[in-house]
Amino acid sequence: MTQTIRYTLVGLGNIGRNLLDILAHRQAAIEADYGLSFCLVGAADTSGAALSAEGLDPARVRDLKLEGQGVAFYPGVGRPGMSAQAMVEEAVAEMLVEASPTNLQDGQPGMGCILRALEKGQHVVTANKGPLVLAFHKLSAMAREAGVKLLYSGTVAGGLPTINIGIRDLAGSEVLKVEGILNGTTNYILTRMEQEGISYEEALKGAQAAGIAEADPTLDVDGWDAANKLVIVANSVLRRPTALSELHVEGIRGLTLDDLRRAREAGKVIKLLALAEKEGDDYRLSVRPTALDKEHPLARTGLWDMGVVYHTDYMGVISAVIEEKGPVPTSAAVLRDMINVYAG
Amino acid sequence: MTQTIRYTLVGLGNIGRNLLDILAHRQAAIEADYGLSFCLVGAADTSGAALSAEGLDPARVRDLKLEGQGVAFYPGVGRPGMSAQAMVEEAVAEMLVEASPTNLQDGQPGMGCILRALEKGQHVVTANKGPLVLAFHKLSAMAREAGVKLLYSGTVAGGLPTINIGIRDLAGSEVLKVEGILNGTTNYILTRMEQEGISYEEALKGAQAAGIAEADPTLDVDGWDAANKLVIVANSVLRRPTALSELHVEGIRGLTLDDLRRAREAGKVIKLLALAEKEGDDYRLSVRPTALDKEHPLARTGLWDMGVVYHTDYMGVISAVIEEKGPVPTSAAVLRDMINVYAG
Repeated sequence: MTQTIRYTLVGLGNIGRNLLDILAHRQAAIEADYGLSFCLVGAADTSGAALSAEGLDPARVRDLKLEGQGVAFYPGVGRPGMSAQAMVEEAVAEMLVEASPTNLQDGQPGMGCILRALEKGQHVVTANKGPLVLAFHKLSAMAREAGVKLLYSGTVAGGLPTINIGIRDLAGSEVLKVEGILNGTTNYILTRMEQEGISYEEALKGAQAAGIAEADPTLDVDGWDAANKLVIVANSVLRRPTALSELHVEGIRGLTLDDLRRAREAGKVIKLLALAEKEGDDYRLSVRPTALDKEHPLARTGLWDMGVVYHTDYMGVISAVIEEKGPVPTSAAVLRDMINVYAG
Repeated sequence: MTQTIRYTLVGLGNIGRNLLDILAHRQAAIEADYGLSFCLVGAADTSGAALSAEGLDPARVRDLKLEGQGVAFYPGVGRPGMSAQAMVEEAVAEMLVEASPTNLQDGQPGMGCILRALEKGQHVVTANKGPLVLAFHKLSAMAREAGVKLLYSGTVAGGLPTINIGIRDLAGSEVLKVEGILNGTTNYILTRMEQEGISYEEALKGAQAAGIAEADPTLDVDGWDAANKLVIVANSVLRRPTALSELHVEGIRGLTLDDLRRAREAGKVIKLLALAEKEGDDYRLSVRPTALDKEHPLARTGLWDMGVVYHTDYMGVISAVIEEKGPVPTSAAVLRDMINVYAG
């Protein structure tokens, strides 16, 4: 027996658009495997929104975006200029999927949409880090009180199940240390420098050409993206209320080929490491370029890899690495969260 | 607000005893973190059983076992000669934890206990592979109909969250290939042969001395343990009804140092690989010594490691490796399942 789940989608950049593409292809399989039928009742982007109680066609919305159009141009039900929050307000749904760009000033527009959805008793799946970095405890508490799920496995390293492993698979054991390569852009840059002997500037240009670094790469290369992810890990997996300002954060901008060579000669590899290490009753949290022993589980991560290592008391040392060549795995992570609200 | 969960425990070998030890240490933390208080109302081993509605003391049962005594000697409430199934029948509980030795002939005594617990509407957490290998679909269906959980993450590679990653983290994506090093004993043997240049026989003796290979090592070295685990993966993660007899299974008994050397010269490493590979609408399933490229995620697994690699359509390639030096992580996996029945 199939359960129909009405959802709204905020954000139709890579993540939102690829999600719709996956859903268009996997609709029948999801129904067969999980008894779930996801029905898109509202979508919003910078052009406005579109609303339909009968459901918008994910493939049609995807194609509009591929043609460079806004969702407000969806035939018949487009609402030019409508804000995402207004769309969430008007739509009747069981779930909000939030995929708007991360904004670390005030988390908007995602924050407003998530708050409204939780107030309306909707489950929330988010790939947007901002609201979680800024207000993790408030949002978690609201979800708990409303008796709904707030899932965000796609926020910490794309498809890598960092959050899920930390919360679910280590339940009952204590986490002594977390080591992560959580930002793909900087791992790509460092790997190219290491393997090809090119300069940081050249490797950065390569990353920009490959579409995995922005014109302004600050968020990635100065370590802030990795830091945001570590904040989410600390709040969720380590149950430690944590603000971004508490972390020591250092990026890769100053690294030279000489630095890499000296590390190599000492049998090590330099990686941008996000680290949480137990110290008494607390954890020390940092993001900094770190010389890892070449036998370290993360030392051999490559151009398209991200990874995490959990050191525990009873569960040994568990490491997980993902190879993801592009943005699709993040959308796949959003989909797994949508399914796991009901199937998990 | 704390929820008290009454559970029975069948099997007090390493897995059961270490589980009680962890619970004794982590009782307060589990209550604080999850609001759960596990109460041991019945336990059974080869001596008989003990039952107490008020709850047996996990530390006391653990100590009895460490002293070489059977649980039937628990003061006041011991029941010498009582069968595990009779204990499960009599106890009033929300959950059965099954940790008796794997028996692949008929799955007993675990099979009877699990069936009875499911009939009584109890959740079941099992580290015992036998019943799952022999009757996965019957047991899953019973759990589903009873509206209870049947969890078994500790059955496939100790603490490694093979099953959990496969089921939860890949939900919505398609698994194209699964590669696993699922048996620790054979990985220990092959790693020692590779690193120290000792013979198979010598490495096996070392494994026996280290307590990780039995006097009769057949189950491990002939690939059957890995095959059982692959059967569980196929039934659960791949949703493919699978019997042990369908697998091509080949162990490591015939491997020589020459084989390893030839592989090394070709830039490869020989590992006992459990493999599921999509072929049309089905999967080919096998366990056999396989020459892995030395850059393969599993090629560098060491003495105490097990690992799995999931190749997917939308989620990239996800690999996970655990380093576990002994049996405790399997018990920790049982504990995570106990918690995740309620918290997951």
